[in-house]
Amino acid sequence: MSKRVYLDWNATAPLRPAARAAMLAAFDELGNPSSVHREGRTARHLVEGARAEVAALGGAQPRNVVFTSGGTEANMLALTPALQLAGDKGPRDRLFVSTIEHASVRSGGRFPADCVETVAVTPEGVVDLARLEHQLASAKQQGVIRPLVSLMAANNETGVVQPVQKAAEIVHAAGGLLHVDAVQAAGRIPLDINELQADLVTISGHKIGGPQGVGALVRRDEALHFPDPLIKGGGQERGLRAGTENVAGLSGFGAAAADAQRELAANRTHVAELRDRLEAGLRAIAPDTVIFSATVERVPNTVLFAVAGMKAETALIGLDLDGVAVSSGAACSSGKVAPSHVLGAMGVEEKLARGAIRVSFGPATTETDIERFLQAWRKRVEALS
Amino acid sequence: MSKRVYLDWNATAPLRPAARAAMLAAFDELGNPSSVHREGRTARHLVEGARAEVAALGGAQPRNVVFTSGGTEANMLALTPALQLAGDKGPRDRLFVSTIEHASVRSGGRFPADCVETVAVTPEGVVDLARLEHQLASAKQQGVIRPLVSLMAANNETGVVQPVQKAAEIVHAAGGLLHVDAVQAAGRIPLDINELQADLVTISGHKIGGPQGVGALVRRDEALHFPDPLIKGGGQERGLRAGTENVAGLSGFGAAAADAQRELAANRTHVAELRDRLEAGLRAIAPDTVIFSATVERVPNTVLFAVAGMKAETALIGLDLDGVAVSSGAACSSGKVAPSHVLGAMGVEEKLARGAIRVSFGPATTETDIERFLQAWRKRVEALS
Repeated sequence: MSKRVYLDWNATAPLRPAARAAMLAAFDELGNPSSVHREGRTARHLVEGARAEVAALGGAQPRNVVFTSGGTEANMLALTPALQLAGDKGPRDRLFVSTIEHASVRSGGRFPADCVETVAVTPEGVVDLARLEHQLASAKQQGVIRPLVSLMAANNETGVVQPVQKAAEIVHAAGGLLHVDAVQAAGRIPLDINELQADLVTISGHKIGGPQGVGALVRRDEALHFPDPLIKGGGQERGLRAGTENVAGLSGFGAAAADAQRELAANRTHVAELRDRLEAGLRAIAPDTVIFSATVERVPNTVLFAVAGMKAETALIGLDLDGVAVSSGAACSSGKVAPSHVLGAMGVEEKLARGAIRVSFGPATTETDIERFLQAWRKRVEALS
Repeated sequence: MSKRVYLDWNATAPLRPAARAAMLAAFDELGNPSSVHREGRTARHLVEGARAEVAALGGAQPRNVVFTSGGTEANMLALTPALQLAGDKGPRDRLFVSTIEHASVRSGGRFPADCVETVAVTPEGVVDLARLEHQLASAKQQGVIRPLVSLMAANNETGVVQPVQKAAEIVHAAGGLLHVDAVQAAGRIPLDINELQADLVTISGHKIGGPQGVGALVRRDEALHFPDPLIKGGGQERGLRAGTENVAGLSGFGAAAADAQRELAANRTHVAELRDRLEAGLRAIAPDTVIFSATVERVPNTVLFAVAGMKAETALIGLDLDGVAVSSGAACSSGKVAPSHVLGAMGVEEKLARGAIRVSFGPATTETDIERFLQAWRKRVEALS
């Protein structure tokens, strides 16, 4: 039987060999990083090494990296009214999130539901910055003076790169703070918290080829305080996140971050070539293929498309039987019948949206993988007529 | 150089070979358990297998196991005013925790600080149930009608097994719910949520020989609701805990739980023999050795002791240089100058408490390990005079 073709990297990416090796090495060490004996100090050394590697991937200072159990927890930690800048006289008083954010951000974190406002996107799936600016101004008139805005760096379904840097200018001009969920951008496009001028950035381990169960919330500036940690107890992570550190998982996260950073330029070119090949193939098979957000900047590894008349559910099952794993959207919601909230937010007709297929890949993906997908896809399209 | 002797299992236990093997096998699989393709279904299968194994360790139904990132997060998830039994007309209105609980429980979780009351322990380090009963009655007179009580199954420093089953009777008679932090008891003594009649139980992965970064909150009865999850987003863990599951970590957790359960009786005997040997050795070296809580029931793997005039800090460094890793108390606080809050709560004189050494071990510990510790300890005691 031939090898499976896994093209669902945005749901979870394969473990990078360097991450696997780092975890195996950590399994042979033993210790709680809070312990003072040699085993504890070794564990501490592994955690701090990983912290420096993850910091480097985001252009941040190691001391500004707070490790969490994943992207979702990092988003929850970030989205709290209690975020505090020096001089703040009260809590963050409104949260703005785009309509295409991940479910963890759309949940509003620890903001009461009536303090969360959504920001629309264009038909191409780009956050509408004019709308954001307008909404911040209206909120100010209503007395909102310390807004928090959360926008993703790249969308998980369409791959659209969001105008985060411009958003930061708008948000800061309005006296706000900007959190950026960079889970799908980290390791795929350059990410520098100082260039972006984001105040907080979320990174996930398993989307960059590290293990599942680890993530980080990164601060640009130590002056941003979290007086109300999500998980309280021991003094780990400088009091911002209690619980014994996942030494092996963090070692794998660090190794994956270092790997991703080192190979970023080369991987980006390789992956963009595969993307172009894939999109040309899709159009050759069905000239009426709609490739969502094709006219705007996207991370190179993600293609979301649909062919009129195709039902995604049926297609996925057929592709799976042919040895190809792809998705109909975000993994968190792919079990559900409801179509993608992202395409809904973009105003895509529900009928077409229900046929949307997401192909997402990465550095280890080969031309053969793309060809095998296209062969299997051709069968699905031919079965339509 | 001879092998190190690691006797700090209560801080973190060595990874069991079965857990390591399960994690390696999971690394070779690939998938997000929410994905519908074969890779996703395999990942789901691994997670549900682990859930059944962890459930079995606690005598619970698999559907009542909520996986978390560890014991601390499980405690935070449990300690919320929003816990709801069918028929509840309002939130839990007061939290009672003993003075010897883990820092994550003493933090009060999501209860406001002024709704948290502490319950004293006896000089032997046993929760004072008469006091608890009295405090619950007083609270009722003040209008508290839905109390939540959190007591540990075994203390991390002294090893004292707490009277959880009797506490459950008292708590339930007062209309309350009982949460039990069983992090240091699981895998060491039998643990059955139905026998204990605890409403919620916390288990940690790395204390039973699984990996760090995984834990579980176990419900006795599905009728207990969590309307306000700590981590929101995707619908994982039946909506109770969002975030992509740590498939490899949970596989290791499951394997460790199965192993611990299978070998419980044999390990308990082996470990108790080592404990008796250790305590006899300690007394032979220094007849005035104080073994804390020696007169009450303890988990067999933990010995907390002190010799007058010994400073724990100095002793730990000397032992570490001699190749032996032990602790002066809980890892979370061992970096601090303050003496153990547990011994403080027991009324132990501060001077003696500052000399307290914790030796904790497990199934893989050998007689030779104990002998090597005793040799190194003899040097420390001899250096005193």
